[in-house]
Amino acid sequence: HYDMANETDEIGIVRGLAWTSVGGDTLQIEVNIMPGKGDISLTGQLGDVMKESARTGLSYIRSVSDRYGIDKKFFREHDIHIHIPEGAVPKDGPSAGITMATAMLSAITCIPVYAHVAMTGEITLRGRVLPIGGLKEKLLAAKNAGIKTVIVPEKNRRDVEEISNEIKKGLEIVYAEQMEDVLKIAFQEASHGDKK
Amino acid sequence: HYDMANETDEIGIVRGLAWTSVGGDTLQIEVNIMPGKGDISLTGQLGDVMKESARTGLSYIRSVSDRYGIDKKFFREHDIHIHIPEGAVPKDGPSAGITMATAMLSAITCIPVYAHVAMTGEITLRGRVLPIGGLKEKLLAAKNAGIKTVIVPEKNRRDVEEISNEIKKGLEIVYAEQMEDVLKIAFQEASHGDKK
Amino acid sequence: HYDMANETDEIGIVRGLAWTSVGGDTLQIEVNIMPGKGDISLTGQLGDVMKESARTGLSYIRSVSDRYGIDKKFFREHDIHIHIPEGAVPKDGPSAGITMATAMLSAITCIPVYAHVAMTGEITLRGRVLPIGGLKEKLLAAKNAGIKTVIVPEKNRRDVEEISNEIKKGLEIVYAEQMEDVLKIAFQEASHGDKK
Amino acid sequence: HYDMANETDEIGIVRGLAWTSVGGDTLQIEVNIMPGKGDISLTGQLGDVMKESARTGLSYIRSVSDRYGIDKKFFREHDIHIHIPEGAVPKDGPSAGITMATAMLSAITCIPVYAHVAMTGEITLRGRVLPIGGLKEKLLAAKNAGIKTVIVPEKNRRDVEEISNEIKKGLEIVYAEQMEDVLKIAFQEASHGDKK
Amino acid sequence: HYDMANETDEIGIVRGLAWTSVGGDTLQIEVNIMPGKGDISLTGQLGDVMKESARTGLSYIRSVSDRYGIDKKFFREHDIHIHIPEGAVPKDGPSAGITMATAMLSAITCIPVYAHVAMTGEITLRGRVLPIGGLKEKLLAAKNAGIKTVIVPEKNRRDVEEISNEIKKGLEIVYAEQMEDVLKIAFQEASHGDKK
Amino acid sequence: HYDMANETDEIGIVRGLAWTSVGGDTLQIEVNIMPGKGDISLTGQLGDVMKESARTGLSYIRSVSDRYGIDKKFFREHDIHIHIPEGAVPKDGPSAGITMATAMLSAITCIPVYAHVAMTGEITLRGRVLPIGGLKEKLLAAKNAGIKTVIVPEKNRRDVEEISNEIKKGLEIVYAEQMEDVLKIAFQEASHGDKK
Ligand SMILES: [Ca+2]
Ligand SMILES: [Ca+2]
Ligand SMILES: [Ca+2]
Ligand SMILES: [Ca+2]
Ligand SMILES: [Ca+2]
Ligand SMILES: [Ca+2]
Ligand SMILES: [Ca+2]
Ligand SMILES: [Ca+2]
Ligand SMILES: [Ca+2]
Ligand SMILES: [Ca+2]
Ligand SMILES: [Ca+2]
Ligand SMILES: [Ca+2]
Repeated sequence: HYDMANETDEIGIVRGLAWTSVGGDTLQIEVNIMPGKGDISLTGQLGDVMKESARTGLSYIRSVSDRYGIDKKFFREHDIHIHIPEGAVPKDGPSAGITMATAMLSAITCIPVYAHVAMTGEITLRGRVLPIGGLKEKLLAAKNAGIKTVIVPEKNRRDVEEISNEIKKGLEIVYAEQMEDVLKIAFQEASHGDKK
Repeated sequence: HYDMANETDEIGIVRGLAWTSVGGDTLQIEVNIMPGKGDISLTGQLGDVMKESARTGLSYIRSVSDRYGIDKKFFREHDIHIHIPEGAVPKDGPSAGITMATAMLSAITCIPVYAHVAMTGEITLRGRVLPIGGLKEKLLAAKNAGIKTVIVPEKNRRDVEEISNEIKKGLEIVYAEQMEDVLKIAFQEASHGDKK
Repeated sequence: HYDMANETDEIGIVRGLAWTSVGGDTLQIEVNIMPGKGDISLTGQLGDVMKESARTGLSYIRSVSDRYGIDKKFFREHDIHIHIPEGAVPKDGPSAGITMATAMLSAITCIPVYAHVAMTGEITLRGRVLPIGGLKEKLLAAKNAGIKTVIVPEKNRRDVEEISNEIKKGLEIVYAEQMEDVLKIAFQEASHGDKK
Repeated sequence: HYDMANETDEIGIVRGLAWTSVGGDTLQIEVNIMPGKGDISLTGQLGDVMKESARTGLSYIRSVSDRYGIDKKFFREHDIHIHIPEGAVPKDGPSAGITMATAMLSAITCIPVYAHVAMTGEITLRGRVLPIGGLKEKLLAAKNAGIKTVIVPEKNRRDVEEISNEIKKGLEIVYAEQMEDVLKIAFQEASHGDKK
Repeated sequence: HYDMANETDEIGIVRGLAWTSVGGDTLQIEVNIMPGKGDISLTGQLGDVMKESARTGLSYIRSVSDRYGIDKKFFREHDIHIHIPEGAVPKDGPSAGITMATAMLSAITCIPVYAHVAMTGEITLRGRVLPIGGLKEKLLAAKNAGIKTVIVPEKNRRDVEEISNEIKKGLEIVYAEQMEDVLKIAFQEASHGDKK
Repeated sequence: HYDMANETDEIGIVRGLAWTSVGGDTLQIEVNIMPGKGDISLTGQLGDVMKESARTGLSYIRSVSDRYGIDKKFFREHDIHIHIPEGAVPKDGPSAGITMATAMLSAITCIPVYAHVAMTGEITLRGRVLPIGGLKEKLLAAKNAGIKTVIVPEKNRRDVEEISNEIKKGLEIVYAEQMEDVLKIAFQEASHGDKK
């Protein structure tokens, strides 16, 4: 029941990692951008912490929009829809923060996301990446889903180092302190991915 | 108490399949499009998962509107009303996702839906068709309601293969991975249906 | 305590039939149309199923507005208020659907409603008339209130046939499959009624 | 603790009658009209039945606004505030319907209301006056507050006739079937009142 | 823990009196007026009765705005914020009605409020001042906070007369029937205050 | 798990002090300003007291905007987003009032905030600084996080004096009566900080 890694780099779709009562899981975050008037839709039975996390990520993106050549009027003239299947399973927590932000920025800029990456981490309004829990289960789920590269918060480095090598074998683990670190992997690698 | 198959291909009406505590059931999803300002109405005592599913389907349609020749301004200038009788019976879950999306697209494009088809499957923002439950009961209900063709998620293929042939006899079962697969049957067949 | 049949045909007022814990009852649905901006008000302690039923009926009317010569801009430039006395008694359920739709259409078109008719039936977005419950009690209440003609869903025909003739004596019972069947009685008869 | 009858005819203030767990009470309904955009404010801890009753009364007034020379644009360009002191005491029920409607119409048209009248009765969208309860206690409260004329629903005539004459002595009781009957007393008498 | 009397007359700040489970207390009501679009903000954990009381007071002010030379467009072009510290303590009830109204009118007209006054009383839409409870505790709190003049409702005169002189000694108690009586003290005295 | 003091003075980020069931904690308040239409977003699972505190602080800033050269139209043309990580931890209470106000004013005026300061105190609409609780735990947390200067309410001076010197050693404690006192430290010191 794992969502397997994407076969090709896609725009607006990013793989996240969840930690549930029955172990780790991958979840594929989808973002659509539509002509509109600045509304944000959040579907997939997201809890209030997760919804706030999405809004925090969007404000971060708006604050760095210059850096990505996004037009001033973009956010006033478009609606953003974030959906996380499976639609009947309640989801909550801040750990999909960097994943949702990456998916939104990919959809807005049309930069494809490297297909073989998954990520987990809380995001702040200023793009700092905060530590999260359940890393062992999440890494295991990523591996089973065929993921090659996993982005985790720098502040979880010690937690990762304590996880047995057997679990980590075959996974490239990248540490991120800031959203810039996340995007370097998610977007830059994507261009490399194209050349493969 | 089954809603029988439609006698003629209709616009904006699609047969769905539900799985209730007392067995499977068919439900006829109705969509009206009205001049308006972009509102979406959802009636028939739909639960929050089902409402999110409708909104997800609508965003999917908006993201592929070019493909169907839908005018850019259409969604800003019309209201969409989805109703599922019987109005007093609470309904929920994501499995009517592809049905509601098909009914909306039919109503928007005025393409009639093949009268003898029923369908079940979760929809994602990118039009992927996700697996659902209760297939045995749903197929039985479809058969009793005189349905000829049932569209089910490709990811339920194994579940279908495990159902006894007695139940499946007389039903054409079509597997769908993407909304395109669903619409090929629902819309293309409709034109065939006209020739019958 | 029955609301007696109206003495003259009126615009925007239709008699419905309710089924309560203490037996059947008649209820008089009132609709006012006011210059406005497209709002709908529903008062009289209506439950959510009943409110959805009113909205479903209104969408049906909007979808057939051409047929009744209603101007495109009408719904954007008017408010509609549906009130069901007695204001302190909670009311719910879908069975006043065709009654509320008839009252709205009468108020919008200024066609008076035949004073001696009462009706009960769920309405769908496409104007189909679905079966309801409590028919015996409702027919009894209609008779006691001096009603001459009762419109019931075609799909309740068998239920009506099982009710003793003593109850039905003196009542003209008309079966409706579609709102057109309802309106033919409610509006056409009205013109006959004027000639009496 | 009774609100005593007003000393002079006032605009936008009408005396109502309430029936509480500790007996009858008078309550003075105040209405202010302000330049605005069509909002209605309801304060004084009014319950939902009472709020609906106020909205029903307002729609009635809008539907007969021609009769009172109220400009078409009036309701779009003004806010209406109904307040019932004492602000901490919860109030509910439909029986202040005709009182709130009279106070609104007085405030809108600037016709003063006869100071020595009190009234009780449910209002419908079409201005019908429906029966209410607790008449004995309400009449007693009216008398104690120095009220001269009490308007009650025609449909409560029998209830009034059963009340002992000792209670009714000194009170002029007027029966109303329609809001017109109410306003005839509340407004016409007012002009008489001026001459006293 | 008493908020002491202000040292100088201020605009938009008025001292109220509260009655809590642990005795009387003074509370300083603050009002800011900002360019805006007619919104009213109420902060400080105000209960619904208190919020309604603020809205009632505002409607009263709007109805007498001519008398204070307030421009017709003022209320459409400004936002009003009422805050009552301490922000974590829930507050409710109608007895701060005249205090909030006085603070709003002071902020709107820029007339300073006499620093040594405190007040308590319910306000109605027409500016009537209704009686309140807990007078003994409130007077004691006013005295301890260094207040010189306390405005109380005329309808509480008898309650005040029953309070021992020891408590009242040193406090000037002024009775108010209407908001005009309140403002005469709060605003007129202020000008006297300036001369001291 | 303490958020350590910032290394450089930053715009729109201020260190607050929280008092939780497990002791004191530092929390870093982030503010982003975006082109918009006057909306305020509050994320990080803030309780209603804390949200009101943010709104009170914003109204204070709007009332003194002249003093800081903020354009009249600024607040109508921008959205403000306040976020407090960690996003899953519920936060409430008024004691971050001066912190949120300082962060907002820094973000609006682009004046950086001295990196080594932390603060705690309730804010009122007029910028008064009210006392708060848990000072001992908060000072300890500030010290552990490497903070040099702590701003506390003047009205907590006696509470601070009662805390043992061991805890306070190495911390510069500044008392504030008004927001001006807070900003003098937070902004002025910032310019000094640059020179270090
Ligand atoms: Ca899964
Ligand atoms: Ca929650
Ligand atoms: Ca069924
Ligand atoms: Ca749910
Ligand atoms: Ca009845
Ligand atoms: Ca319900
Ligand atoms: Ca009373
Ligand atoms: Ca209620
Ligand atoms: Ca206090
Ligand atoms: Ca309450
Ligand atoms: Ca922490
Ligand atoms: Ca709370």
